[in-house]
Amino acid sequence: MRALWFDGRLQLQTDTPPPEPPPGEALIRTQLAGICNTDVEIVRGYKGFSGILGHEFVGFVERADSAPELVGRRVVGEINAYCGECATCRRGQPTQCPSRTTLGMNRRHGAMADYFTLPAKLLYSVADSLPDEWAVFVEPLAAACQILEQVTIKPTDRVVVLGDGKLGLLVAQVLQLTGCQLLVIGKHPGKLDILRRRGIATRLVAEPVTGYADVVVEVTGSAAGFAAACQLLRPRGMLVLKSTFHGDVQLDLSRLVVDEITVVGSRCGPFPAALRLLEQRLVDVEPLIHATYSLADGLAAFERAVEPGVLKVLLSMA
Amino acid sequence: MRALWFDGRLQLQTDTPPPEPPPGEALIRTQLAGICNTDVEIVRGYKGFSGILGHEFVGFVERADSAPELVGRRVVGEINAYCGECATCRRGQPTQCPSRTTLGMNRRHGAMADYFTLPAKLLYSVADSLPDEWAVFVEPLAAACQILEQVTIKPTDRVVVLGDGKLGLLVAQVLQLTGCQLLVIGKHPGKLDILRRRGIATRLVAEPVTGYADVVVEVTGSAAGFAAACQLLRPRGMLVLKSTFHGDVQLDLSRLVVDEITVVGSRCGPFPAALRLLEQRLVDVEPLIHATYSLADGLAAFERAVEPGVLKVLLSMA
Repeated sequence: MRALWFDGRLQLQTDTPPPEPPPGEALIRTQLAGICNTDVEIVRGYKGFSGILGHEFVGFVERADSAPELVGRRVVGEINAYCGECATCRRGQPTQCPSRTTLGMNRRHGAMADYFTLPAKLLYSVADSLPDEWAVFVEPLAAACQILEQVTIKPTDRVVVLGDGKLGLLVAQVLQLTGCQLLVIGKHPGKLDILRRRGIATRLVAEPVTGYADVVVEVTGSAAGFAAACQLLRPRGMLVLKSTFHGDVQLDLSRLVVDEITVVGSRCGPFPAALRLLEQRLVDVEPLIHATYSLADGLAAFERAVEPGVLKVLLSMA
Repeated sequence: MRALWFDGRLQLQTDTPPPEPPPGEALIRTQLAGICNTDVEIVRGYKGFSGILGHEFVGFVERADSAPELVGRRVVGEINAYCGECATCRRGQPTQCPSRTTLGMNRRHGAMADYFTLPAKLLYSVADSLPDEWAVFVEPLAAACQILEQVTIKPTDRVVVLGDGKLGLLVAQVLQLTGCQLLVIGKHPGKLDILRRRGIATRLVAEPVTGYADVVVEVTGSAAGFAAACQLLRPRGMLVLKSTFHGDVQLDLSRLVVDEITVVGSRCGPFPAALRLLEQRLVDVEPLIHATYSLADGLAAFERAVEPGVLKVLLSMA
């Protein structure tokens, strides 16, 4: 089968044998996969992963010995394969399982291939009404929903989303649904336009912002985001960190103590909620799709994905 | 009157005129004042404050035109003089009032003098059963109680207090009362002994710690504390920051995101709760008192306070 493989360099392999699903796992035929910033970080060598990339996908179940009802279904899937038995899993936090493998990221081949495997318990059927191009956004949209799993955002809160990348645009749409007083600050007028058309207030980073936010979501993907977020926050405010990036940041921690700021790190989120938001068309992912490449053109797709201003690039296995 | 004055250098003044209380403020005759790490930081020039030092005190009300019932009462007092009218005050967070002055720290002369003034609304009467030497601990003990204002600590939680300084010893005693599984990690066997005698488990930093904490309270007062605290924390754990110190810290913020850590900055706390704990002898401050100096020996007292291993040094106005 074909597979987009990273092993120090990114390469398209055409003769990789299809995987044999271990007990409890399903064999999935990928339809569409999304390129995420994390994939770009991996290709830059920051994660130390080697293997087949890809963790945003929609596909068909080809085989599932432990869950035959899934065979033939169109599915999306959670990316953290957890043990289910450790203290963390029993605490109901399987995405934090210390012995987890992560699809296309950590000790598990990903979905940018004709076939891959994933535990059947991680799969969710996709409603017929949801096109592949929407379903492939479930994973990042779930990550946006995770903010509301961790933090109460009140309808009266002043909330600032800092960053207008792919994840920032999803976060903003999810937070808009709380009724809060939302402002998105970004660098790209074209990206902010997507939100403005949905009635969300936006500012370019250079524009002045008055008043202070109760909650700031930092999703810039850059080291400067933390300090900028603190500037916007009122005392006892809440800073939600969604950015992962390589390298250390210089911080004045006393500021957190004196202003009694709460900082919450936030990562993977609930798939069923994200599917509901997509099925009910409460968020719009269409304007986020900037290009779709065939898997055979995977290298070109990655080059496109890192161009400035480019949002989601999809890979089609067709 | 006599006053311990900092203006680039620490000096004992003997001819400072006693202050005239502004409307709403009481004139207080200091009995006892405590030297806090923040005072030491100020004397090192880190805060840019100049004026009379001191924010931990117990004293007698000499004059209080707006609250005559307080005259002659022995009182302690909150240190943040707030406006009461801004959005922060109306939100019920007066210690964060952006136009606050802070006793002996920020635009307000402190209590290391024969007399000082403070808004009458900040004062609390001290029960006769509470000696001065105990009452003077109300301010730092309130700061320890503030953790429980901000964070729910469950009786089943594994909690680590990192740091065995004055504040660490108070924090540990307050958290012990929750019934949680508590461990205090410090550098000084003598200080840790104070806690061990109260049945609190302790470790020296060099000793190995197994398992992971649900909550870590960082009260080392040093830049290395943050990283050490993260090491001890389970995924989705809670890190409470109590240390303020000068200078930036290098941090890998991605760790917070990947492990979904919550960081809570915590500062001044509730005086009535701290008074209750002292009056009911639920915490013991006696072993924390290492020396009492006369105000006339204030410079020597500050020198003693910074010696390694020394806990609370008190200043008596008698």
